[in-house]
Amino acid sequence: MSLNQVLEALSRNLTAGGLLTAPDDIKPYVSDWTKTAGTAMAVALPRSTAEVVSVVKACRDAKVPIVPSGGRTGLAGGAVGTPGCLVLSTTRLNRLGEVDIVGRSVYAEAGVVTQTLHEHVHAHDLEWPIDLAAKGSSTVGGNLSTNAGGVAVIRYGMTRKWVTGLQAVTIDGDVLELNGELEKNNTGYDLVQLLVGSEGTLAIITGATLKLTRRPRHLCTLLLAVRNFTAVPDLFVESRHLAYDIQAFEFFSNRCLTSVKEKLGRKCRLTVEAPFYVLIELEGEDAYRLQASVEEWVAPLMTQGLVLDGMIGSSSEERKEIWGLREGITESLALSGRVRKYDVSVPVRHAVEFIDDVKRTIDDQKPVFDLYLFGHLADGSPHLNLLKHPHASMEQFEADGERFEKVLYAILKSHGGSVSAEHGVGLLKKNWLTYSRSATELRLYRSIKHAFDPHNLLNPGKVVDV
Amino acid sequence: MSLNQVLEALSRNLTAGGLLTAPDDIKPYVSDWTKTAGTAMAVALPRSTAEVVSVVKACRDAKVPIVPSGGRTGLAGGAVGTPGCLVLSTTRLNRLGEVDIVGRSVYAEAGVVTQTLHEHVHAHDLEWPIDLAAKGSSTVGGNLSTNAGGVAVIRYGMTRKWVTGLQAVTIDGDVLELNGELEKNNTGYDLVQLLVGSEGTLAIITGATLKLTRRPRHLCTLLLAVRNFTAVPDLFVESRHLAYDIQAFEFFSNRCLTSVKEKLGRKCRLTVEAPFYVLIELEGEDAYRLQASVEEWVAPLMTQGLVLDGMIGSSSEERKEIWGLREGITESLALSGRVRKYDVSVPVRHAVEFIDDVKRTIDDQKPVFDLYLFGHLADGSPHLNLLKHPHASMEQFEADGERFEKVLYAILKSHGGSVSAEHGVGLLKKNWLTYSRSATELRLYRSIKHAFDPHNLLNPGKVVDV
Repeated sequence: MSLNQVLEALSRNLTAGGLLTAPDDIKPYVSDWTKTAGTAMAVALPRSTAEVVSVVKACRDAKVPIVPSGGRTGLAGGAVGTPGCLVLSTTRLNRLGEVDIVGRSVYAEAGVVTQTLHEHVHAHDLEWPIDLAAKGSSTVGGNLSTNAGGVAVIRYGMTRKWVTGLQAVTIDGDVLELNGELEKNNTGYDLVQLLVGSEGTLAIITGATLKLTRRPRHLCTLLLAVRNFTAVPDLFVESRHLAYDIQAFEFFSNRCLTSVKEKLGRKCRLTVEAPFYVLIELEGEDAYRLQASVEEWVAPLMTQGLVLDGMIGSSSEERKEIWGLREGITESLALSGRVRKYDVSVPVRHAVEFIDDVKRTIDDQKPVFDLYLFGHLADGSPHLNLLKHPHASMEQFEADGERFEKVLYAILKSHGGSVSAEHGVGLLKKNWLTYSRSATELRLYRSIKHAFDPHNLLNPGKVVDV
Repeated sequence: MSLNQVLEALSRNLTAGGLLTAPDDIKPYVSDWTKTAGTAMAVALPRSTAEVVSVVKACRDAKVPIVPSGGRTGLAGGAVGTPGCLVLSTTRLNRLGEVDIVGRSVYAEAGVVTQTLHEHVHAHDLEWPIDLAAKGSSTVGGNLSTNAGGVAVIRYGMTRKWVTGLQAVTIDGDVLELNGELEKNNTGYDLVQLLVGSEGTLAIITGATLKLTRRPRHLCTLLLAVRNFTAVPDLFVESRHLAYDIQAFEFFSNRCLTSVKEKLGRKCRLTVEAPFYVLIELEGEDAYRLQASVEEWVAPLMTQGLVLDGMIGSSSEERKEIWGLREGITESLALSGRVRKYDVSVPVRHAVEFIDDVKRTIDDQKPVFDLYLFGHLADGSPHLNLLKHPHASMEQFEADGERFEKVLYAILKSHGGSVSAEHGVGLLKKNWLTYSRSATELRLYRSIKHAFDPHNLLNPGKVVDV
């Protein structure tokens, strides 16, 4: 089939405006937040699962690779368009079902924006607890395809825990209706869990039945200054004695705090300057008792010297002020210059040694960047951000970054860590996969990929090469 | 290789007592709680992963099928030995690692008994929240292989939510070390989740890193008498207004209660007799406030007539008394005669219609059994137990049971339900798989099975025929 014939076939099967072929129209769809250069022969915007099926069949018959595309907020290049591909955008698959308050679930098409979903279920006093910075643009389908994490993983886990059923289209155009609303269905291999996190390489997710939970009651947010990094996991162990559920347990270095204060003009009410800060959010039944318990818990930790200073935010303004310090870090660094980011994970009990190893490497290598350390301690996923020294050249920065990266991945491997905690593999982490996965695992990945997509047409070149 | 050569090879690689070949020694290992007739040429009892590897390699070379075996408490025949097979029992793989209180996890070999694990982690004030009737015999490996459920699923979910890492041996004798202690590791397909619930047909689980959580604080157990089955889900919706986490939401019919009272001599303090009873367990920070809130919540429901009578158990004796009514049902029925059991699931919002359909079928068919209805409402998994009328023949009972079963599975399918909520497929549910899974799903199952086990030697004939 010629290219024109393929485009004609596609266009015939899509409702008006469903096929973009002009370079300017295609451009916004071929990359993600990494700004990796991408390309595509066209972009399809199906309005229904039936339209997805017809697009997939046309591509399969013509051997055109398909790159599924959601909100394109990915950070691993998973949605980057590859030469000759068709980008299949879920933007117009954006229907939301009624909230089922008996079964506590809701059906959402893949293109529904995360925040739209949140607002939809909040109206029924329920929560879909996947909370991430990109929620204003990211989609349900993208969250599922990448098994998104976020700030509430310590309490709720990753996206894969909040889905019961999937609708997905195979490369043959079969519509899989997997599991629906069932919480319990032990009849064979869990294809829902296999598709979650598969980054569009096995089938195209077109909709999902999402599990909901009750909204948190009273929240209380603590900001604690601690004497060193070791105190961060120590404090986490101490937090076990609190009779409350921990909603978040985040940390950041003084360097990160300084950046937020200087670049974004935000204020921190703590009077003591410390090497590290910990943000803990707790949920309780009663605001007054929650605050009293927290004060009682912190007092001896201050006497012991584990905590140097602290503040408790109970009102939504105070809580917002504390979160603003943690959530402003990425923006403040972006304003400061070129940054390399590493989204890694290690077992929580290795966190201190891992950070020691990282710091030692930087001391040894004397690179032209500074380390900005923050992230999710309780999930074992610190974010390492490397900020270029103001006067260093880009060339030197990238060279030093690559030199550091090689050692970083070896350190990670030695601690049983992962090269991608949250962001997935996509295009950009593929070469480092052997640091997190064994040869046997990769062989099984290829067999599974072959079972679903024998001609390698679904997001080819992503996750694993066949 | 002759049979003797295989046995010699196996025996060489196992420590003393590691190979059973005498029929009397083999017998306890070839069946499960269903008492389905099984057989085996021998039973291997490896003491280490290395021994598992050598057993698997010997079997693979000699094309001997392997049936993995844990506590043999299964209810679908998954561990039943098949002609010419080697049963690989995990009994001697029973080491338990130290509890990691920082990362809240523990490593357990596959043969560790569930209850032993519970006691091990309780000593650190932590919980592995898989709580099932068989816990005194069931093993960690069995729980994982069947994705076990239990009474706490409403709060904690199924077994698959409480594991981060698996060690498993492939049919080639490769040891997969999957994911370890990482909560976050988005690098490729989730093989841990694929192996969980695969009933030993893809690889042999030899150990697991299990996630732990804090133990519940104060618990309060309610027993409420309600006017009809419709009131059960209605009450579940009302329970959303409680500012407490629901630890259990169970129900049973008056017929079940009568059976427990008559056969086990247990007492129920409720004075009103009602068609259905609901057991709700709640967790709170403070025992006094919890009880007060519950009383406040129940009062208007009694005024409305949704609840006819109720009691609140706060002490452990009172709570035990209430649970004794729910947990005695299975035993009391076993004492009454022959029972057919159906472990099914439906979307929670279909529960009322589903039960109506079931009752109508029984009214129409006039079988020689009575329906005893109880189970987990909030997870959509009612247990249907059919108890033979005392004077009916076994032949008539089985014939009537099979006639009912055919309609039951069709009803289930029409409600988007499952033929096996918790117990798995094994040998006994295989023929009904098409009621829960589509042809495309079954095709993918076979492809996945082939990718892991091309010669069909791992628990062959279970879950899906290749």
